[in-house]
This record gives sequence, structure tokens and C-alpha cells, in this order.
Amino acid sequence: MSKIKQDPRLLTPGPLTTTPQTKEAMLHDWGSRDSKFIAINKGIRDRLLNIAGVSGTHECVPMQGSGTFVVEATLGTLLPRDGKTLVVINGAYGTRMTHMLDKMARNYATYETAENEPPNPDDIDKLLADDETIDFVTIVHCETTAGILNPVESVAQVVAKHKRALIIDAMSAFGAIHLDPAQAPYDAVVFSANKCFEGVPGFGFAIIRRDTLERSADNAHSLSLDLHDQWKALEGGGQYRFTPPVQVICAFEQALNQFDAEGGVAGRNKRYSNNCRIVLEGLREMGFKTLLSDNLQAPIIVSVHMPADPKFVFKTFYEEMEKKGYILYPGKLTIADTFRIGCIGALDADDMKNAVEAMKKTLKEMGVKSGAPAA
Amino acid sequence: MSKIKQDPRLLTPGPLTTTPQTKEAMLHDWGSRDSKFIAINKGIRDRLLNIAGVSGTHECVPMQGSGTFVVEATLGTLLPRDGKTLVVINGAYGTRMTHMLDKMARNYATYETAENEPPNPDDIDKLLADDETIDFVTIVHCETTAGILNPVESVAQVVAKHKRALIIDAMSAFGAIHLDPAQAPYDAVVFSANKCFEGVPGFGFAIIRRDTLERSADNAHSLSLDLHDQWKALEGGGQYRFTPPVQVICAFEQALNQFDAEGGVAGRNKRYSNNCRIVLEGLREMGFKTLLSDNLQAPIIVSVHMPADPKFVFKTFYEEMEKKGYILYPGKLTIADTFRIGCIGALDADDMKNAVEAMKKTLKEMGVKSGAPAA
Repeated sequence: MSKIKQDPRLLTPGPLTTTPQTKEAMLHDWGSRDSKFIAINKGIRDRLLNIAGVSGTHECVPMQGSGTFVVEATLGTLLPRDGKTLVVINGAYGTRMTHMLDKMARNYATYETAENEPPNPDDIDKLLADDETIDFVTIVHCETTAGILNPVESVAQVVAKHKRALIIDAMSAFGAIHLDPAQAPYDAVVFSANKCFEGVPGFGFAIIRRDTLERSADNAHSLSLDLHDQWKALEGGGQYRFTPPVQVICAFEQALNQFDAEGGVAGRNKRYSNNCRIVLEGLREMGFKTLLSDNLQAPIIVSVHMPADPKFVFKTFYEEMEKKGYILYPGKLTIADTFRIGCIGALDADDMKNAVEAMKKTLKEMGVKSGAPAA
Repeated sequence: MSKIKQDPRLLTPGPLTTTPQTKEAMLHDWGSRDSKFIAINKGIRDRLLNIAGVSGTHECVPMQGSGTFVVEATLGTLLPRDGKTLVVINGAYGTRMTHMLDKMARNYATYETAENEPPNPDDIDKLLADDETIDFVTIVHCETTAGILNPVESVAQVVAKHKRALIIDAMSAFGAIHLDPAQAPYDAVVFSANKCFEGVPGFGFAIIRRDTLERSADNAHSLSLDLHDQWKALEGGGQYRFTPPVQVICAFEQALNQFDAEGGVAGRNKRYSNNCRIVLEGLREMGFKTLLSDNLQAPIIVSVHMPADPKFVFKTFYEEMEKKGYILYPGKLTIADTFRIGCIGALDADDMKNAVEAMKKTLKEMGVKSGAPAA
């Protein structure tokens, strides 16, 4: 029997629900110079390159901290100090990249669409044609602000046509949404241990084209966040430069075993898509309206319009759902008042069905007849 | 019965051996916006201010990543962009601060002594008198490069006399070596979850004088490593700005309970001092010579001269000790060929006595008669 009590189900974009086995992998102490621990890190990096389908052309560099740390490390390491970046924005995570670039005083332009509207590759084509000084483009694969799936393949092809470099923030998508390097060629893709791979939070990864990484030796604005230095250390002695979160890394190795056992990206996509379908159907039965049309909805997190019924108070709804064992997520949109329901983590169809039933019960308790928003 | 198998004892400066209870605190999933998780963070921050004895004057700001991340975040956040810092150096961690300052293009001077020689407060007095443009001084409390205990009280008094600000990197000392804010007034002290508090690695802390922190809003060179922003977020909604390592944080709370139960800094100092005494006595029985005289030796990590006996090969010694369940640590000194033995972590007198016995046995197996270095 597992020692683990049932924790609330986290219907969030992270930290996520993880399996007991993943957490139990943390019940050990590891010396960071231990040859077995070094082999674990090498194994993780090689396996992620294989999953991405870029072994041979790219390198996998881990970095301590949250996903944001890895995005910042990737921008700081790869963007030339005198370069210019086009930041494609349709949510908080695109906007956050501009905050990073402001802090590190790197030049950038922005191309922004509404939070519920994907970027238009033709617009990006024109922007790149008009400004030859732009050398890098950044885009978020799944913007969890709305939960939108951005057309990274079409954008990547435009960027490649103009011979510019592309950085994809695939934090909440990588591992569950197929990213074909032939269809979407990229210089770097960034993701976290704690999203679709279902590890615990504490580090993340950038997979970077080797020649892009080799050219980046003196770019970084930060010692800690220098991915070139980190890569060199891992290629040399196999060790992180600075104390790694050893337990978190061992949990990730276990999570990766479960990822493989589930059938990799295809298997995970199938489960999350089914989770998402159950949530969408359940929400619609209750009269809720989701922000995005289904063709734009990534199977990661769903934004839901707040109901018009004056008896619906989100704080109460959240707290009553928490009492039933489900943690919802507040909205982050500027364009509409919403809340969010995540579909990722170690959650299956039964979890999602039970969550929908808990929502129905909670609405009834609150006396809310319909989840329909104002017309 | 604990599910935890006996892992090797880590005689290192980190990652360290932690207790089963600390690791078992990681067997849960937490939403980062969960009110219980927010309360845990508030509790940890308040307790650390109490331990430091600076509740009321200082703030405790946690930061994801390794200890180096927190040192860099503290320098980047507190040092004015047009300021000048005097970096006191007698080892790799002082030198590392200059690498950080180089990356962030901040002006600094250095005052360096040999790795086995403490800084002289009179020299610092003179340097500060001669250069009024120096506004900050940084010093490492215990430099684990040699294992030396630096005279932070005397240095702090000199810095205060000249009305400059002081940042203490107490990474490997805080929690086990008393730091009296009346004797050693500081603007910031930096430490890790994973050293003398015996948490698992993944985050650390800066305790910062409130008015110093308030003045630091626009200094940071990095979004992720901005301690002012991190503080504001924690003071506001009680949350980290970016996904916290929830399991690592909950392990730290448990580790802090054990710290209190052991009698706080005094209790921990007593156990580590005893661990260190057992190691020193054992080493000397075997003929080994330690780098430092006992008055300079912190009870944290011991640097040992390599024996002159040609039968002594450190790699073999390390591997044979590993087979017996003890992980030693290579040296990092520039001035002498050494290896190191850590005295910290969840290790008691029996662990250290057994480690000494394992060393004696290993020397015998290797045919090494004495640990004495070349004359």
C-alpha cells in the first residue's frame, strides 16, 4: 500500500497532480557527483532528445527553477546582445518574454493578437520581410492564458523561409502535443518537468540546435541562467554547475518511465484529449460557455466564461469544489472574466467525470440553474 | 517502517543526507494557490526571521534554484546599477560573485587572501576609507573551498562604521553557526534550504533589511531572479511569482520542525561540532593533515592534504569508501592538493565514527600506512 493519502486533484496548469510512484522516487538522497546520478541525468537528456526527434542536431540542457527561469535562460543565452527579437504575443506568457527582454536590455518588436485569436503567419511573413534586423522570433505553443493552441508549424515555416531563428515556449504542450521538427523547425523549444511529463516542479529544459548553442558562449546576462555554460559542464563532467535538485530530477526520471509506458506523446495526447472532451461536454451540459471554439482549444486547459446567474460567486464555487477534492484555477485573461479547468497531470477519465459531477453538485448547492454567461 | 532503503551517507557540502521524515513530506501534491500551501510559506518565512533574530527589521525572501541562484538574485536585486561593491575573497564562492558581477556589468573591487587565510578587517577598514564609491561589501561566512570560518562580525563592524551595506553569503553556515545581528549587522544574508537546515535542494533564501529591499525596485538584471518582485508578490497574495517547487518547500517545513526540535542553531552547532571533532581526531590518528588550524576550521567541511604515500590514489579511496556507504568530496583548492569531508546533514556521531572506521579499513586495504602528506 502506498503511504500517500489522496490529495486534492489539481485541475490547474501546474503544479500538477503526479503519481505516487513519481513522488516516491524522491525518497532517496543522492550526491550530485555520484556516477549513478550523473548517468540518470545523461539518460534523461538523451531520452528527451529522442522524444523530440532531434537527436543529432540538438542538445538538451536542463536548468533549475520554474519554467519561467528556463524561458529567461533560453532568451538570455541565445539572443545576441545586439540582436532583435520578434515576440509573438497572445497572452501572459508572450507578454512575460517582453518583461524578460526589458530586464536584460535586448531589443525587440512585438506582434500581438487577442488572447482568443491565433497569430496569422502571413502577418509574421510581412513583418520579417519588412525588418531584416530581426534575427529571432519567439512564440508560445499553447498559451495557457486562454488555453489556445498556436499554429507553430505555419509560423516556423515562415521563420525558416526568412532564415531567422525560432524559439518555442512549449511549456504546457511539450510531451502531449506533437511537435514535428520537420514541419516546425526550431532553434530552441522550452518546457518544464512539471507539465505534460508529470514530474514535480523544480527544473525544466531547453532543447537547442547545437550550432545555435555553440554560437551563444558570451550572450548570457546571468551566471546562473547561462545555458551555454550549463551545457558545457554537462558535456564535460556530466554534472550541473550548481547544486541540482536531486530528488526532483529522480522524480522526473520515474515520470519519464510512465510517459514511455503510456505510449509517449501519442498516448499522453490521447488521455489529455479525452480529459478535455469530458470537461467540455460536462461544462456545456451545465450551460457554461468556453472561451475558445473547439478548433482553437488545446487539450491542456479550458477557459470558461463566468456565469451570469447572480447566485454564482466564483470564490464560493472554488471553495466548495476544493472541499470535494478538486482545485480549479482562476482566470488570467484581460478580454473576459473567466475561470480555468486544467486537463493535464496524472488524472484520468474517472477523475474528470467525478470533477464534472462535483461541479454539477456544487452549482445545485449554490442554487445556480445554468452556467450560461451574459448574452 | 520507513520505505526508505539506507542510502550512502553524504560527507559533502550538499546535496546532503536528509532524514526520512523530510523526504516523506514530499509525498503530496500541492496547488501553489492553495491557502494551506500559502500558509506554509508564510510560516517558513516568519520562522527564519525569528531564527535570524531580525523579525521587524528584515524580510525573508525565498527563491527557486540552487544557492548560487539566490546569491546572484541578491546581488542583482540589491546592488545599485551604478554602485560599486567590494568583494572579499578567499575561495571559489567569493570568486564566483565576481563572475556574477561581470555578467551583470556591475562595478566592483576585490580584496583577496589565500584560501587558508581569513580576511583582515583592518585591511577592509583601509580599503573603505580610501574608496568612498564602494557602497556594498560582500563576504562568505564559511568558505567551503577550504572550510574556513571567516570573521564576519569584525568585518561587519568595519562596514557599519563606514556606513556601507553588507551582504553575507552564509550558504553553508546559516542555521549552524550563530550570526548575531547586533554583533554582525547585515543588509542581507543568503542561505540554502539544503545546507544546515537539512532540507532537500531546490530553493534558498535571502534575509534582507526591509529598507534596503524597498530601495531596490529597479536594480535587477533578471526577471526570474528579482527578489524585490518576489517579495512584493509574497507580501501581496502570498504566492511565488512563478511555479514554486512545492514538494521541496514542504520538505523544508518538515526539516525546520526537526531543526527546532534539535534546539535550533545551538543544537545543530553542537551536533556538527561533534561530527567535525570525530572526523578531525580520526584523520589525525591515521596521520592525515588537515589544511586549516583548528581555530580557523568551521564545523562544516574539512579539507585534508593528500597523503604522500604513493599507494594512496584518491580515486580508489573515493570508490572504496563509496562501496562502504560513504560519499567523500573532491578538493577545490588552488593552493594545495586536497580532498574534503563534510560534517553536515542528517548525520550523527555514530555515522561519523563509522565513516572514520571505513577510512581506516580502506587505507589498510590499499596498503597505505599513513595519511601524512609530503613534508
